[in-house]
Amino acid sequence: MSPAGLYVRTLRAYARHGSNPTPVLARAFSASASRAAINKVYPSASEALKDMKSDTTLLCGGFGLCGVPDTLIDEVLKKPEITGLTAVSNNAGTDSSGLGRLLKTKQIKKMIASYIGENKTFEKMYLTGEVELELTPQGTLAERCAAGGKGIPAFYTPAAFGTVVQTGDLPLQNNPDGTPAKFSYPKDVKVFNGKSYLLEHSIAGEYAFVKAYKADKLGNCQFRLAANNFNGAMGRNAKMTIVEAEHIVEPGEIAPEAIHLPGIYVKRVIQSTSEKNIEKYTWAKDENDADANKSVLGSGDTAAKRERIVRRAAKEFKNGMYANLGIGMPMLAPGFVGPDVEVQLQSENGILGLGPYPKKGDEDPDLINAGKETVTLNPGAAVFGSEESFGMIRSGRIDLTILGAMQVSATGDLANWMLPGKVKGFGGAMDLVSNPSATKVVVTMEHTDKKGNPKILKQCAFPLTGRACVSRIITELVSPLRSQRAQGRCHDSVEKRKELTKQYRAYLMSTSLMD
Amino acid sequence: MSPAGLYVRTLRAYARHGSNPTPVLARAFSASASRAAINKVYPSASEALKDMKSDTTLLCGGFGLCGVPDTLIDEVLKKPEITGLTAVSNNAGTDSSGLGRLLKTKQIKKMIASYIGENKTFEKMYLTGEVELELTPQGTLAERCAAGGKGIPAFYTPAAFGTVVQTGDLPLQNNPDGTPAKFSYPKDVKVFNGKSYLLEHSIAGEYAFVKAYKADKLGNCQFRLAANNFNGAMGRNAKMTIVEAEHIVEPGEIAPEAIHLPGIYVKRVIQSTSEKNIEKYTWAKDENDADANKSVLGSGDTAAKRERIVRRAAKEFKNGMYANLGIGMPMLAPGFVGPDVEVQLQSENGILGLGPYPKKGDEDPDLINAGKETVTLNPGAAVFGSEESFGMIRSGRIDLTILGAMQVSATGDLANWMLPGKVKGFGGAMDLVSNPSATKVVVTMEHTDKKGNPKILKQCAFPLTGRACVSRIITELVSPLRSQRAQGRCHDSVEKRKELTKQYRAYLMSTSLMD
Repeated sequence: MSPAGLYVRTLRAYARHGSNPTPVLARAFSASASRAAINKVYPSASEALKDMKSDTTLLCGGFGLCGVPDTLIDEVLKKPEITGLTAVSNNAGTDSSGLGRLLKTKQIKKMIASYIGENKTFEKMYLTGEVELELTPQGTLAERCAAGGKGIPAFYTPAAFGTVVQTGDLPLQNNPDGTPAKFSYPKDVKVFNGKSYLLEHSIAGEYAFVKAYKADKLGNCQFRLAANNFNGAMGRNAKMTIVEAEHIVEPGEIAPEAIHLPGIYVKRVIQSTSEKNIEKYTWAKDENDADANKSVLGSGDTAAKRERIVRRAAKEFKNGMYANLGIGMPMLAPGFVGPDVEVQLQSENGILGLGPYPKKGDEDPDLINAGKETVTLNPGAAVFGSEESFGMIRSGRIDLTILGAMQVSATGDLANWMLPGKVKGFGGAMDLVSNPSATKVVVTMEHTDKKGNPKILKQCAFPLTGRACVSRIITELVSPLRSQRAQGRCHDSVEKRKELTKQYRAYLMSTSLMD
Repeated sequence: MSPAGLYVRTLRAYARHGSNPTPVLARAFSASASRAAINKVYPSASEALKDMKSDTTLLCGGFGLCGVPDTLIDEVLKKPEITGLTAVSNNAGTDSSGLGRLLKTKQIKKMIASYIGENKTFEKMYLTGEVELELTPQGTLAERCAAGGKGIPAFYTPAAFGTVVQTGDLPLQNNPDGTPAKFSYPKDVKVFNGKSYLLEHSIAGEYAFVKAYKADKLGNCQFRLAANNFNGAMGRNAKMTIVEAEHIVEPGEIAPEAIHLPGIYVKRVIQSTSEKNIEKYTWAKDENDADANKSVLGSGDTAAKRERIVRRAAKEFKNGMYANLGIGMPMLAPGFVGPDVEVQLQSENGILGLGPYPKKGDEDPDLINAGKETVTLNPGAAVFGSEESFGMIRSGRIDLTILGAMQVSATGDLANWMLPGKVKGFGGAMDLVSNPSATKVVVTMEHTDKKGNPKILKQCAFPLTGRACVSRIITELVSPLRSQRAQGRCHDSVEKRKELTKQYRAYLMSTSLMD
């Protein structure tokens, strides 16, 4: 056959099914838009989940109550025959919402999560052996899902090195009396460029529930503001990814560059019908509101102590820095920073460029910080998924993190995630302190605990968040030597200096760094 | 101090530097927008590179001529004192553009790339030992950069298992006579769930050159269409990331969800001044153009053979599939698909939902396929970075890939990247065949090479692209047994069947699968 003959034949083949009157030789699929057969939209959550199996792994997007696929979760609640689920989600919802409800009905037998602090029922169920819990640092959780979605079975991370996550000393399951019944497994450790890392395996999902802002029938999704969080990483990582979207739109309505989760990962799309809720309404304070800081700083002596800490912490900010601040005192520090210093605040749920708390009525359920408080964005702010957020953190792009602590050791070990008999989880703290040579870790805390025991110790008694990671501790105490030096009084006499040295030793004693 | 007192003091601290008249207690940085000190915009490429050091690692975005930071590359050309660069980029530009020019001036001493096929000078320099080359599969290259940007020092990938990349048999550098002087290193191998993976280390960049569509003074970047490619992964992974943007905009002008590269990764921004070029103008064919297919299918007998192959390949498409097609014959297959079949085409440079070639005048330099040809997008298409593209590929989201081959072995080994004495590179082929249990690998090729040697062999003589990965081989030959069976003629007689069996053995002999 001559090339011309072949060409005509090719054209004919194309013309047979192409609705586009312009003849196009190759890529006849180009015409597919008008004869599109792919339609992933299902009429209801019930239809989308009608073949869902028990004893499977379910990945669930969401952070706090933000971006949680509640329509789909509620549908599982309506199908009590679905049991034995291993649920993978950053949080476990609350007692009355999200995965918390599936925990109550015991449809979930195991959770893989970073933080369960908001869920009393779950905490109790875990402590009495009714549910398994694989606590995972938040960044590691995000990356274990992201890696799975990329065909990467395992990767090395610095987060949690030297902690119970690495050694396998974390109870996966407890006995009814609260004693450990089953432990997690120790992780392989390897040194790269003189730094220690642990090998983390990806998590493979059978199902993923995703909450999107917009989705089209090809499955392309767009997230809104901070509601991206874990939805992207989860949505890429399951055999059966089901999306609930606030708006189902036509293909092409989401710009090609604005698609956060391409349709190739998505099998089914439904209309989201659940309400969006807010866990912690937090507003910009009114000048007339005298109780403004009371909740954070307390009152009386405590407030004075804490203000001193916050003021000193504010001096850690340098112009142009990127910082991530813990809940509580660290969050107040920016209020004491001068006008010559501009800092960009990062929130690990996926925000860079945090603004102030919103005015009453301006709060947005898709815009919360890592403490689940309502926030706003500054101009030039960026939002992104949790895997990206922790990429920034792990790679040391955050110049400064200020955190609270229960204990800090003489060598800078940090313990701030667990108190005996309580289970909250790590959240993102292990990741935040995993690159201390690039991210300065500053601890703000009162010098002693409520019983007067020093919190600065030779060795931490509580389980660690990170090893040798703290650069600076700010407490309400001021070294007498330093404070008197500052006032020019230490040049007086030998006796005076001896006295000061004695005072300083007493100070160090109080921190229990010396015996 | 009373809480009220503290509150007033806090407010005062805030008021001192807050330009916003509404008193806001926490997050005083919220007011920073109006006193913004952060400005990463530099007046020129020369200023942005004035302190650039020799003997450093330079990551460079771009794929083909698309999304290449030419303004910055050209500036390095103007600074001949910068030498000894290790350049990391998917391609090496051409003889007259991009990194190709820095190779000519010998400012680059080593390249880490996936494909150098477009650059004759480079090929020659490598073969005569003038430059080092670390060939890396395209998806592995993207992930080695993405991982570095996330603080992940190493990860496991299935791509290149059983190839010279894994065994370390790839020459890093040659002697002037073309014999190998230095080899790459063998990779650690580990089995996860019965499948073998190799450990790949991340690449750390000292500098990254990024081409963006829009950037603001905080460094936030947005890419356009397929110009994202490697820019995102590279931009996240260097100590000094420098962006050249087509448009420098005000903070807030790019929507928070539309920022592809958050400013935290970016140190400097300049105005891009270089022209955008197109390597392979490819247009939708005109009905009157008799030479339409000639370039791909050839003429006469060859065209007839190839058409038979393409027609058979078209039958591999099933409705709803996602497919990735190699350059040449595979790309023509969609033209022979019926109207009941809709397939979404992926292009590994970052497109899902490829449309037809553009009409003359409609071509866009930011929209090319993996073969560097100009293309269009279908409605509902998505564009993304190379690391995302290969995440899809590695995780088996692509149902079908059709590729050409030089040789295929009896056990399905594929060799399609290297001919003796020539260096082109792997491109994305090793990644595309790395998940054959999820991605069906179909090879289209002529039965014999130009000298008549069979291309289906017991064992491949050429270096492998992948081991045991090919599911189906389509050549111009039809098994006589199958073709006669299809015509119902094989039920005739015992003699007839014997004759057919003899014919079939002869057929197999021709493929050299039997001795």
